[in-house]
Amino acid sequence: MEDLRNRLRAIARDAMALDPAHDIAHLDRVWANARRIAEHETAVNMPVLLAACYLHDLINLPKSSPARAEASTLSAEAAVPHLRWLGFSRSQESATCHAIITHSYSAGLEAQSTEAAILRDADRLDAIGAIGIARAFAVSGTMELALYDPEDPFARNRPLDERRFALDHWQVKLLGLADTMLTPGGQYLARRRQRRMRAFLGDFAADIGHELPQHLRPDD
Amino acid sequence: MEDLRNRLRAIARDAMALDPAHDIAHLDRVWANARRIAEHETAVNMPVLLAACYLHDLINLPKSSPARAEASTLSAEAAVPHLRWLGFSRSQESATCHAIITHSYSAGLEAQSTEAAILRDADRLDAIGAIGIARAFAVSGTMELALYDPEDPFARNRPLDERRFALDHWQVKLLGLADTMLTPGGQYLARRRQRRMRAFLGDFAADIGHELPQHLRPDD
Repeated sequence: MEDLRNRLRAIARDAMALDPAHDIAHLDRVWANARRIAEHETAVNMPVLLAACYLHDLINLPKSSPARAEASTLSAEAAVPHLRWLGFSRSQESATCHAIITHSYSAGLEAQSTEAAILRDADRLDAIGAIGIARAFAVSGTMELALYDPEDPFARNRPLDERRFALDHWQVKLLGLADTMLTPGGQYLARRRQRRMRAFLGDFAADIGHELPQHLRPDD
Repeated sequence: MEDLRNRLRAIARDAMALDPAHDIAHLDRVWANARRIAEHETAVNMPVLLAACYLHDLINLPKSSPARAEASTLSAEAAVPHLRWLGFSRSQESATCHAIITHSYSAGLEAQSTEAAILRDADRLDAIGAIGIARAFAVSGTMELALYDPEDPFARNRPLDERRFALDHWQVKLLGLADTMLTPGGQYLARRRQRRMRAFLGDFAADIGHELPQHLRPDD
């Protein structure tokens, strides 16, 4: 497995368009999350899961791209020649591609295998907790977004607008991710990270001198 | 004071080069911090402190600019015509300029008045705690930095390199800021924010699957 992992890392390093939230370190974290989740599952095809983890973002389109919902399908297509070169069987290839295609949040497709469910949870876990906080603000920086709306930081009285305010992405997506987990291991880890994000929000509100709305409080 | 504040906000909005970490919301937070610190000080000239808070970043140079250490002197020069237009006396003008010139971390000058010490602490407070975490990662995103070195995230066995890794800036600067506070109010608030940053680092280390070095642990 370690040899396969090194070969997959080299493929990703050469072929993936990198940004601060999607780099080799992200793939390593997703694989570490996937292994932890897989410990609580039975009959996981580990080479399939490993390949899916390292190749799931081969085609990484910017958040602003209209084709972003298709990035996971394009990544699966781009993975095929690499999987054949690595000697994957046709059934392993198809299982890896299914996991890659259905992992995506924006595509909204159903994960129909254990490996697909694990990759999906492992990737979403990396969007929450302390690492998720770091990634979210780094990405908002690459997009030159303001951290928050100074008039209404938590969008009490306006529609959410994640194309303008970094903090709005939390309510649009990040704070809901823990509820979308498919595996018991993913659920457990996600709830813990979710609690940390809400604690961070409480500190953030205090630092900027605004009150946190009830529905965002740590104990809500 | 509220009328003066609105006029200063309008000046900053028109004249300041904005980025996600240096915008009107940053000025509002620095002023809020300054007011809290000033409660524990005597004989503070509040119009001077208010003007210094809102005009301290008038000239905001990128981190990569070689002239960055002079930005605070340039900001003070740019503030003068506005202060005259606002009716500040010559001694108020000079006190405001002194606070603006000496607030800067990179300039390394000595704050020789209460207002200067308060502005310096209030500005540094905004670089730490939850808001400091958000700003640090947002700025690293604008610079397209990696979040951390995947081989050695906490720089155990390599020199720190804040031009490559977002996390390195914490050890280079952010984790030392609490020890540089000049006022009792600043010290109190900074220590609390510092503890939150160390707790965040512990969560971050767990999320990325690395052990936190002893000297960065929350209780060290």
